[in-house]
Amino acid sequence: MCVPVNPLRVISDLKELRALTGDTKGAQRLAWSAVWLEAREWFQGKLKGLPAEHHYDAAGSSWTTLRGESERALLLGSHLDSVPNGGWLDGCLGVLAGLEVLRSAAEDFHGSPPVTIRLVDWADEEGARFGRSLFGSSAFAGSHTIEADRGRTDRDGVRLEDALRSCEIDVERIGDAGAERKNAAAYLELHIEQGPVLEARGLPLGVVLGTKGVERHAITFHGQEAHSGSTPMAVRRDALAAAAKLALEIRPIARKHSDAVATMGSVKTFPGIVTAVVGRCETTLDMRDLDAGVLAEMLAEARAASERFAKEEGCSVEWSRIWSIEPIPFDSRLIGFCEEAVRETAGVAHRLPSGPLHDAAEVARAGIPTVMMFTQSLGGLSHNKAEDTKVEDLTLAVEAFERLARKTMRWVGDGVAS
Amino acid sequence: MCVPVNPLRVISDLKELRALTGDTKGAQRLAWSAVWLEAREWFQGKLKGLPAEHHYDAAGSSWTTLRGESERALLLGSHLDSVPNGGWLDGCLGVLAGLEVLRSAAEDFHGSPPVTIRLVDWADEEGARFGRSLFGSSAFAGSHTIEADRGRTDRDGVRLEDALRSCEIDVERIGDAGAERKNAAAYLELHIEQGPVLEARGLPLGVVLGTKGVERHAITFHGQEAHSGSTPMAVRRDALAAAAKLALEIRPIARKHSDAVATMGSVKTFPGIVTAVVGRCETTLDMRDLDAGVLAEMLAEARAASERFAKEEGCSVEWSRIWSIEPIPFDSRLIGFCEEAVRETAGVAHRLPSGPLHDAAEVARAGIPTVMMFTQSLGGLSHNKAEDTKVEDLTLAVEAFERLARKTMRWVGDGVAS
Repeated sequence: MCVPVNPLRVISDLKELRALTGDTKGAQRLAWSAVWLEAREWFQGKLKGLPAEHHYDAAGSSWTTLRGESERALLLGSHLDSVPNGGWLDGCLGVLAGLEVLRSAAEDFHGSPPVTIRLVDWADEEGARFGRSLFGSSAFAGSHTIEADRGRTDRDGVRLEDALRSCEIDVERIGDAGAERKNAAAYLELHIEQGPVLEARGLPLGVVLGTKGVERHAITFHGQEAHSGSTPMAVRRDALAAAAKLALEIRPIARKHSDAVATMGSVKTFPGIVTAVVGRCETTLDMRDLDAGVLAEMLAEARAASERFAKEEGCSVEWSRIWSIEPIPFDSRLIGFCEEAVRETAGVAHRLPSGPLHDAAEVARAGIPTVMMFTQSLGGLSHNKAEDTKVEDLTLAVEAFERLARKTMRWVGDGVAS
Repeated sequence: MCVPVNPLRVISDLKELRALTGDTKGAQRLAWSAVWLEAREWFQGKLKGLPAEHHYDAAGSSWTTLRGESERALLLGSHLDSVPNGGWLDGCLGVLAGLEVLRSAAEDFHGSPPVTIRLVDWADEEGARFGRSLFGSSAFAGSHTIEADRGRTDRDGVRLEDALRSCEIDVERIGDAGAERKNAAAYLELHIEQGPVLEARGLPLGVVLGTKGVERHAITFHGQEAHSGSTPMAVRRDALAAAAKLALEIRPIARKHSDAVATMGSVKTFPGIVTAVVGRCETTLDMRDLDAGVLAEMLAEARAASERFAKEEGCSVEWSRIWSIEPIPFDSRLIGFCEEAVRETAGVAHRLPSGPLHDAAEVARAGIPTVMMFTQSLGGLSHNKAEDTKVEDLTLAVEAFERLARKTMRWVGDGVAS
């Protein structure tokens, strides 16, 4: 009965989109831009002949619905938007693999599958223009409060609110996107890994356990600016020295836990001139783990270390939380389906957490059973034009994702999903 | 026979100058500015009634000459220019103490001392506006080549060449300032320490051994930019980690030597965002010591350490010399006179090198016997309005400087100085 998906059609669609919306520097589907709108128009063209309905929700996410015998819906999704100079797979692989699953179901079930299947292209997953990622999915989940974001501006000074209006989105109404949650029974997302784990293990596919919690902090050390020539080593209060100790210490703190990461991504020195001991050093810290307890422990250790180093160097230290999110574990039953689908397709399944956030995290937070599948990223690269995945892995990914969708449809159809 | 100097007159002059050329943020005698020219005009007013001649040399340094029985000349000097928001003593203490010595000699010897005494206010010691310090003294010494500097611009885009022209200095002729070296037999400079050494020892005055050599380098570590969420700790090539190790390692390298200093004053991270492992880290290193061998050893150790750390972190490292100057030891005979003068005035003399450069270094490089005397800086502070020295220390400084000048005049007069 099952009509097999056609992975080569997905790859062909991806290449067509790349040709239409990329340039020599990479993908240019920045959300709320003309190129992004063009990509969405192209996508709508792909729906011709499918017995599906299409609409945009109040936050600009694109919904394609194939009505089934039951109103209970399986959601498939990802995002067509990209960072500037982005890759050809990040986000759009999931949307176009989802489209292929939809096509196959429409054909297989003669237009009416047992459950409703809905394909979503979330608006502005990347947040690359206004610094607010997961825009559409958080509106859907009801976790988005626009007040904090409406005044955000892009590098040209255009306000988020105005960019939305030009795409016919009314900023006051984006919360209405929550209506799309009705009848949603499960959510599946295929994505490239964007990291080196699967490649290092020689695996095409991975089962994603959830998205790691993130603790993101600004840490500033205050010492004493002093003349580099006249100030003896023994009397210095060097803010950089305290920061350097922390930059090194966060590594053993993270390495105690198998999947944890800790990153000092930015260091700024003041006055920051060759002839002065650093009086103030501003740093950032980003820590992630799938276990909330581990994450809290890492944060406490880093804070204690920073205070110890500040004291050793005659400095003071100040912490300020930039942003944080709790770990979001995916649904254990769907993780099981994903593992089966990956094993049936590729022979072996590996479970891993996702370090990057994804729209799936917002959907899971809304209480909808969710899982993601990863496919290998060559060199672990993403967010640039070198991003790539082997054709054979893309093929396996589409096939495995189809298997996962069928297993989940059965589960949703049986009414087991709540 | 000796007419004692009047230190209170020096302090009174310093306060008058502060009132005329400072504001609530500090001294504003930026070289080649209207306020600086006003300070110089005020200084010329102070010469009224003195049997001295005055002229500006081809590089804009101000020369006040009290002709003596011999043409062989004792030079006294420092600088009236300041950094923006500078202190009330840096530079002008030496000029006004020199003026007091000149006054005292004119009175004592009825206008004609045994040797000629020349007081110089060097043009643009600070280099605060165009980044070219020791301007007047290096023109005097013949070590200044204008070609490298004529195109320098200030923050408003004004070219050095044009700023000089507005002060009636012809950039093509500044080398003519070398003519002032004629008959110069010795050079003395009184300056605030601008560091914490004398204060820590409870001493008002210090004997300066010379200016430290400086090695100033840009050091860049190249690693691999990577996503902070998806890149496991074990596979990172973190350029910041290598730089942090070096920031800490330069300290034991310097501490092996009693007066050596090593400073990482600037760290820049690229891409420098909270969500990315640092792919490139640009740092600066400034190392100083009075012993050329020690300085070379420190530099070699730092370089070897940077290469070791780069290797440990899977990075590469690149060095580029920004600037360097050899150590400039002062004249041993004059150091002896300075030590006598300080001991006779304050009871105890301490020898120390100068970390900051001074015009005296350029004069010494020109082969003229040179020494400097330091007086204590409260809190080691300089280059800001908090710069200060106790009145009793300023008083001792002027008295000791007068003693040093008299000893040196006798030496010059005896024809011992070559």
